[in-house]
Parts: sequence; C-alpha cells; structure tokens
Amino acid sequence: MAAVSISPLPFKPMPPPVLTHQSLAKLVSGTLIQGDADSTISGLNSLSEAVAGDVSFLGNPRYAAQIKTTKATAILITQSLTDLPHDKALIRVDNPTLAFSTVIKWFAPPARPLMIGVHPSAIIASSARLDPSKVSVGPHAVIEDEAVIGDGSIIHAGAYIGYAAKLGNDCVIHANAVIKEHCLLGHRVIIHSGAVIGSDGFGYELANGRHQKIEQLGIVQIDDDVEVGSCTSIDRARFGRTHIGSGTKIDNLVQIGHNVVTGKNCILVSQTGISGSTRLGNYVVMGGQVGVAGHLQIADQVTLLAKSGVTKNLAAPGAYTGYPAKPLIEGRKMLTYPGRVPELLERVKELERKLAAINGKTAE
Amino acid sequence: MAAVSISPLPFKPMPPPVLTHQSLAKLVSGTLIQGDADSTISGLNSLSEAVAGDVSFLGNPRYAAQIKTTKATAILITQSLTDLPHDKALIRVDNPTLAFSTVIKWFAPPARPLMIGVHPSAIIASSARLDPSKVSVGPHAVIEDEAVIGDGSIIHAGAYIGYAAKLGNDCVIHANAVIKEHCLLGHRVIIHSGAVIGSDGFGYELANGRHQKIEQLGIVQIDDDVEVGSCTSIDRARFGRTHIGSGTKIDNLVQIGHNVVTGKNCILVSQTGISGSTRLGNYVVMGGQVGVAGHLQIADQVTLLAKSGVTKNLAAPGAYTGYPAKPLIEGRKMLTYPGRVPELLERVKELERKLAAINGKTAE
Amino acid sequence: MAAVSISPLPFKPMPPPVLTHQSLAKLVSGTLIQGDADSTISGLNSLSEAVAGDVSFLGNPRYAAQIKTTKATAILITQSLTDLPHDKALIRVDNPTLAFSTVIKWFAPPARPLMIGVHPSAIIASSARLDPSKVSVGPHAVIEDEAVIGDGSIIHAGAYIGYAAKLGNDCVIHANAVIKEHCLLGHRVIIHSGAVIGSDGFGYELANGRHQKIEQLGIVQIDDDVEVGSCTSIDRARFGRTHIGSGTKIDNLVQIGHNVVTGKNCILVSQTGISGSTRLGNYVVMGGQVGVAGHLQIADQVTLLAKSGVTKNLAAPGAYTGYPAKPLIEGRKMLTYPGRVPELLERVKELERKLAAINGKTAE
Repeated sequence: MAAVSISPLPFKPMPPPVLTHQSLAKLVSGTLIQGDADSTISGLNSLSEAVAGDVSFLGNPRYAAQIKTTKATAILITQSLTDLPHDKALIRVDNPTLAFSTVIKWFAPPARPLMIGVHPSAIIASSARLDPSKVSVGPHAVIEDEAVIGDGSIIHAGAYIGYAAKLGNDCVIHANAVIKEHCLLGHRVIIHSGAVIGSDGFGYELANGRHQKIEQLGIVQIDDDVEVGSCTSIDRARFGRTHIGSGTKIDNLVQIGHNVVTGKNCILVSQTGISGSTRLGNYVVMGGQVGVAGHLQIADQVTLLAKSGVTKNLAAPGAYTGYPAKPLIEGRKMLTYPGRVPELLERVKELERKLAAINGKTAE
Repeated sequence: MAAVSISPLPFKPMPPPVLTHQSLAKLVSGTLIQGDADSTISGLNSLSEAVAGDVSFLGNPRYAAQIKTTKATAILITQSLTDLPHDKALIRVDNPTLAFSTVIKWFAPPARPLMIGVHPSAIIASSARLDPSKVSVGPHAVIEDEAVIGDGSIIHAGAYIGYAAKLGNDCVIHANAVIKEHCLLGHRVIIHSGAVIGSDGFGYELANGRHQKIEQLGIVQIDDDVEVGSCTSIDRARFGRTHIGSGTKIDNLVQIGHNVVTGKNCILVSQTGISGSTRLGNYVVMGGQVGVAGHLQIADQVTLLAKSGVTKNLAAPGAYTGYPAKPLIEGRKMLTYPGRVPELLERVKELERKLAAINGKTAE
Repeated sequence: MAAVSISPLPFKPMPPPVLTHQSLAKLVSGTLIQGDADSTISGLNSLSEAVAGDVSFLGNPRYAAQIKTTKATAILITQSLTDLPHDKALIRVDNPTLAFSTVIKWFAPPARPLMIGVHPSAIIASSARLDPSKVSVGPHAVIEDEAVIGDGSIIHAGAYIGYAAKLGNDCVIHANAVIKEHCLLGHRVIIHSGAVIGSDGFGYELANGRHQKIEQLGIVQIDDDVEVGSCTSIDRARFGRTHIGSGTKIDNLVQIGHNVVTGKNCILVSQTGISGSTRLGNYVVMGGQVGVAGHLQIADQVTLLAKSGVTKNLAAPGAYTGYPAKPLIEGRKMLTYPGRVPELLERVKELERKLAAINGKTAE
C-alpha cells in the first residue's frame, strides 16, 4: 500500500453560539412576552433535559406540567397557553415544534458544503443521463447505463444507481445505498444509507423437491416526497411494480415485499414488515415491529400499534393492536384478559367448595 | 470536483409489446382451447388486478372463483380445470404458475447486457484467483488476497469479497454486498445487496464487570443454490462453521447467528432471527418475524407461522404457532382463549348469584 | 470492460494443525491432570459436537453431564470440577471458556495480514486528518473533509467516514459500513459491515395533510469499547446526541432511534428496536426482537427476554418478559394463563349442571 501524505490540519473548534432572547424571538417569528430581551441562551433541549442557559419548547400539551419544573431559561409556547411560570423567558409562537426546528438549525453544526459536479472517482456509464453542473455525485458512486438523474439530486459516496433506473429532481441517495435496475423515483425522494430498492422479491415454486426461483421482473416505483430509512429493503415486483405512494415515510430496517402498494402519506416505523401483494390505503400508520401477511387490504387511516400482527383485511379506519390484530379496545383487552385467569380459578374453586357443601347437606 | 461531460442521450422508450393468443399459447407450450387465435394481449397481471388486454393465470385453486370475475382477456389454466368462463381466451398448460413466469419474462424490460471482464475501477488483489474472461466484476468491487471466484460468477458494483473467501461457479453477488474473509460459497449462490456474510458472531465473556469479546474465528459455509436476501446478516462461527444447506432460500433482513446450521431447502422469511448454534433440519419453513432461541434442534419439515417464538426443541414435523410456539391447533387456540374470559367472568358471576340465592334459601 | 490479467496462483492448503496434550496445557496456562502428554489433538468443538481427536471445554456447569458422553479426546475444565470421566485427557484451567478462546485462535485460519497505509484507490479529503503510517485504509474507502481517524484504526474497503466525523484510536470500521457526518466514536469501537451510524432520526410534523420532515441535526456519540453489529442502524439525534455508553455491545439488525441514550455495558441482541428518546441504565440486557417504546426510562440491570415489548418505564432491576412486559414470574404466567381457559370452561359447565340439578330438586 502506498502511504499518501495527509496534511495534519489544525482543528477549528466552533465558538459556542449564543443568542439573545430578543434575537431568539425574531428568529422564530414569535413574541417575547416575558423575560429580559438582552439575556442570552447558549443551548437547547427538551423540557425534561434542559439545563440553565437552554431554550426549550412546549409542543405537546401532555408535557405542560414540565414548564414549571424545567431548568430551561427560555421556552417557546403556543399563542393560547395559560398557567405560565414566572421565572422563565417566554416566547409565543404559532407552532412551538416547528419553531424549535428553526432553533435547532441555528445551533446545528455547519452542514458539509455541497459539492456540485461529479467526483472524478465516480463511475458514470456513457449512456447515463445527468447534468454534471446541476447534480452532485460523490466519490466511488456508480451510475449504470441508461440511468437518469434529475437536476438538483445528490448521489453520495458509494451509492449505486442501477441500469435504466430513473430519479427525479432533488433526490438524495445517501452513502452506500442501492437503487437497482429499472426502478423509478419521483422528486425529492430521500434514500438513506444501506437501504436497498429493487432487490428480488421472495418467490419460489416447489418442483421436484426443490425451490425453483420465480423470476422477479417488475420494478419499484417510489413517488414524490418519500423517505426511506437506513437498511430498509423494498423488493421489486414479480411483474408490474411495487409502489410507494407520495409522501409516505418509511423508517429503518423495514421490509416491503414484492408487489406491495402503499397509499399516500403512510408512516411505517422501524422493523415493520409487509408481505407481498398487500395494499395499504392512504395515511396508514404502522408502529415498530408490526407484521402484515400477504395479499391483504388495509383501509385508509388504519393505525397499527407496535408489534401487532395482521392476518386479515382491515376494512375500517381506526387503531388496531395485538396478534391477530383487533380494534384497539378489544385488542388491548385481549392482552389483559389472561391476567383475570387466577381470579377465575379462585372463584370457581370457591363455587365448587360451596356447592359440595350444599350437596353434602342435601345428601344428608 | 471536476465536472465530467455526460452525453445527453435521447431516451429510447420501448414499443409496447403485443402477443397474439396463438403466439402466447406457443410461448408457454400450451393449448388455446377457447378464444380468437389472432387477438392480442398487451399486458399481464394477477386475476384480481388484470384489465382488458391482460393475460392472467390460475395457479392456486383457492382463487378459482376469480376466473369468472377477472377483467383479463386471456387466462392460463391447468389441464384439468372445469367450470370455465365463456368470454375469455383460455390456454391449458401443465403448470400455470411456471407458464406465467415465461410470460413475465417475455414482457419484462430488457435486462442489462452482462459485461464480461473486470471493470478497470475494480480492485483485485494480486493473489486473488479468477478468470477475467469468464467472470464479470463491476465498478469499484473489491476482491481481496487469496480469494477465489468461480467461472460464470458476477460480482456487481461495490461488492466486497474478503481475504481467502471462495465462491463456486455462477454465483451472483449484488451491488454493495459483503462476503468476509474465509467464507465459502458453493455454486449458483445469490447474495443480494446489503447482505453481510461472515460478520462476527455475538459473543462476550463477562469479566471484571466488562463484556470481553470472544474471538469469532470460524467461517460461514453456504452450499449450492442458496439465495440470501438484501440486508440479511449471517454471522461467522465462533469456531468451525455457520452452515447454510443447499437449496435454502433466505429472505431480506434475516439474522442467522454464529454456528447455526440449516438443513437443505429451508425457507426463512423476512425479519426472522435464529440464535447461535441452533440446528434446523431439511425443508424447515419460517414465516416472517419468527424468533428462535439458541442451541435448539428443529426437526425436518417444521413450519413456523409468522411472529412465532421458539424456546424449546421441536422434534416433530408439522406447523407451529405462537409464543412460546405450540403445534398449530393448540397454538391457535392459545391466541383465542383470552377472548373467552369475559364470558367466563359472566357465567361465574351468575353461578355466584344463584348459589347465594340457594344458600339464602337453605339458610332460611 | 478491460480484461485484466490475474495470475493464477497455486492454492496453498494449510497443513492440518496438531497439538500434543502437553503443548495444549501449556498453551492455555493449565495443568494436564489426566491423559497422555504426547498424544495429539487435531481439532476442536463443543462437547456435544466434538469427535475423536477434538479438544472441548466445560465452561457452563449446565452441560456437566456431557463430559461423560462427549466424543472429545481432551477437555478443558475448571480447577474445582469433580466427578470426572476416566477416558479423557483433562486440563484444569481458571476459566475454560476463555482458555478455549486461546485454542480457537491457535486453530483459526491465518488472519489477513494488516496493511498499514492508505490504499491508492481510497479517497481521503484534503482536510481529513490521519497519520497514514499508523492507520489502515482499504480500497475504495471514502473519508470526507474534516474527518479525524485515530492511530491504530482500520477503515476497511468501501467504508464511508462522513464530514467531520471523528474516530478515536484502534477502531475497526468493516467493509461498506457508514459513519455519517459529525458522529463521534471513542477508542476501540468496532462497526461491522453494513451498519449505518448517524442516519436521520424518524421525525415528521403533520401539517396540511402532509408529513413535513423535522430536520435531524444532532449527532451519534459512541463511547469506548462499543461493538455494533452488521446492518444495525443508529439514528442521529434531532438535536444534541444519540449516545451509546462505553462497553455496550449491539448485535446485528438492531434499530436505535434518535436521542436514545444507553448506559454502559448494555447488551442488545439482534433485531431489537429502541424508539426515540428512551434511556437505558447500565448493564441493561435485551434479548432478540425486543421492542421498546419511545421516551421511556429503563433502570440499571434490567433484562428483557426475547420478543418482549416495553410500553412503560421499568424502574426496578430484574428480568421482564411478555407484551406488555411484566416482571419475569408474572410475565411467564401471562403467557401460560390462556392454557387454563379450557379447564375453566369445563369446570364452569359442570358447576352449572350441578346447580341446575339442585335448583331442579329444590324446585320440586
């Protein structure tokens, strides 16, 4: 191995950022209704974890009690919140959660400057189509023949764009992610590292005692504004397409089988698995580690709680839990009913004792 | 970053393929028993999703009713099927599912032409052994020292073949998959993108309050005709080998612990996990999200339904479900028994009421 | 594709290693208390799988009965073990499990010689800091601007070290693993292939019917002596840090949500998922496929059995199981109680029959 010369650059530690209460209010388009305008904050955290000098926020009324106990110096609150603490700087905003996002960005470490162009080590097949003045392709990325990359898209280091795959504008494919041949991505699609789009569906035909592979010759189509988490697998269709509807957000380590169709704006939390050919409506939400059998229909606005397992169609919107999944109230009861068994055993024993006593008496 | 010049090739949209009923029958070695020989089909889909102009198939008798309601124009059916619809083109074949695979291939987008040879950007260690005229090694693939690649094998872009790993003939290692040092693959093994073969087993010894790593110095051996899904991890043995028997098919995101042994022709569906040193017989099937504890023996032809959890040896073939897993009938009942608790509570309450009435009477 | 010339090196099969009983005792700093000093062993395995010529070990008293039935020729045993077999070579050592690790290393295939330096195909940004004479950077690895790699660290082929990420000394980043921007790793941290450190946390705000991405601007901090398995995802914090305490060991395919904090020396087995902002104490153990909801506190020394699901804080150390997770004894009963339902139904039916008989009699 050749030893290359790396210049030992001095570290440049960031100066700790500070922000006055008044500047903070301006930053979030809010109103400072209490607290000294010129005092400063130097950090940020949730109400429960904040320390002196931090700004925090109350976005969820469930945590309202914490604004009395938090150690935060300043708090972003809604326009209507009452019962306020007297010792904090308070800033009213329309949406404290979104406003806090603005604060987070202000305090965040500087993002890596985006490099426009194609890194010399990237391999771009001669028939691939992209405008090098409008995309960013990182080191060792590979873009195969006939692939198309829309303007504004970023292909990070080591990512792979397969033969004839087509990406819309402003997509971000993170380091070492894989988009396989013929798959189609819309605009503003984000694929995180290690995710695999378009691996073969899992299909075999048992013949003569052996599992013979059924060719998987369809594609994956991912519509606009979808995000796919790290190490998530979305299998290509046996034929036709596996289809992820626009605005759907998929967490890490999720499995989407071949020919699955999701509606728009679904939320699939980590480690959930959806078997082949199942169809989800719009706004379907699945908690972590949910499993759904194949060839099912899940209605719009169904919410599945974490770890539930679905074995039948769910035709009505609403929440479900348990395995097999049942409507929320019933599903929760199914989880608690076994706990009534000891009491039942005791009561039955007592009945048997009393009845024996009566029978003894009547037998006399 | 240097901006490279990418030629903006014109798109070449495929002409929509069409196939006459007669050509279709010939394609699948079948017999057109009904329908116009010269009419054409232009697409394909399952019975439930087909539209006019599509060919479909009836492979599973469970869907027989659908051949009356499908919108498909032509249907592939078995030699023996009766009760046929009158308004469809019908083609009898020996195995509609396999025949349909042929149709799928006919309609599939053209596969990327295989590039024989080693891409100039691939790194092949000088002591690695392969015949560049008989293999395909993609861009940025890495093949370490002493590795051996059999003839006919394809190592896709960014894949990694570790030190002294050995692959048989006609293997396919997909983009960014990882085969670690000393691992052995037979012939016709397929490893999908993001899969990791030969990562360290998970073993520690608690000493002085710290988990000390137990070296994992064995290998993974994968026999002929095995397929491993995307983002699946198969750990190397602590010593000796983790062994995947021939013909076994493993889906995405599956975990195989160190020293696990699977028999031949097993099917392991997505997100299943098998803990260290467990041994599976032949033709074992595990549904999605199954978990199996370590050091267990699972007999030939055991089938575990999705989400079941195995904590003891399973010595008899057959289906099991639930956690802890029980034979199918019993396991299913265990899932439904909690639903009988409300009725039991009601009946016990009624008994108590009646008994109190009797006792009241007898106490008179 | 250019066909490169690969020299067809002759295979160098290893001579089968053999070790005399006396050399074996010396190797493990033990005492040969029984057996011929000059006889040899030529392999190694667990007690249950050993064959003649193998050395094995008894580390766990649970397997004590096996030392009478094992086919091993030599066995490593504790200083205090009694009830010994008469036909085996026996070597007393302080810790048979650790001693066996030494034997494993002796028999293991030769490790790949470590290449010091930076492979010419690796891409190291000009402002990255590392000492090429003290690190190993493999083919096609990418190290972005401002990243820092400590001495003794190994960055394997295809691994990605993001902008301003910082690694301590003696870390090992396996092939194709991803460490994203600004993440911090301590000393002796091992990240296996396909793992992703610092992908975005999963956070959205529903506004106007669409899930708007909440920027994830924090980092992941991993302290000394942590190991992270293959295809595991650890998300960066929304702000601040996701924090893995020193000595914690994480298996394959585990999901760690944003802002999760683990204590020191935790063990997280494969396919476990921990939702955002949950905090674990020290020495927390989670079996495979465990799920933990977000924003919870898990006390020191809590052990969660495989497949359990945690929905509430666990404030007391000890073992828990089931879903929702309960203390071990209660949790196990909850899994068995449904099995008492048939008996209850039978006893209630009998009571009803008898009571009807009495009522019939008293009605006479």
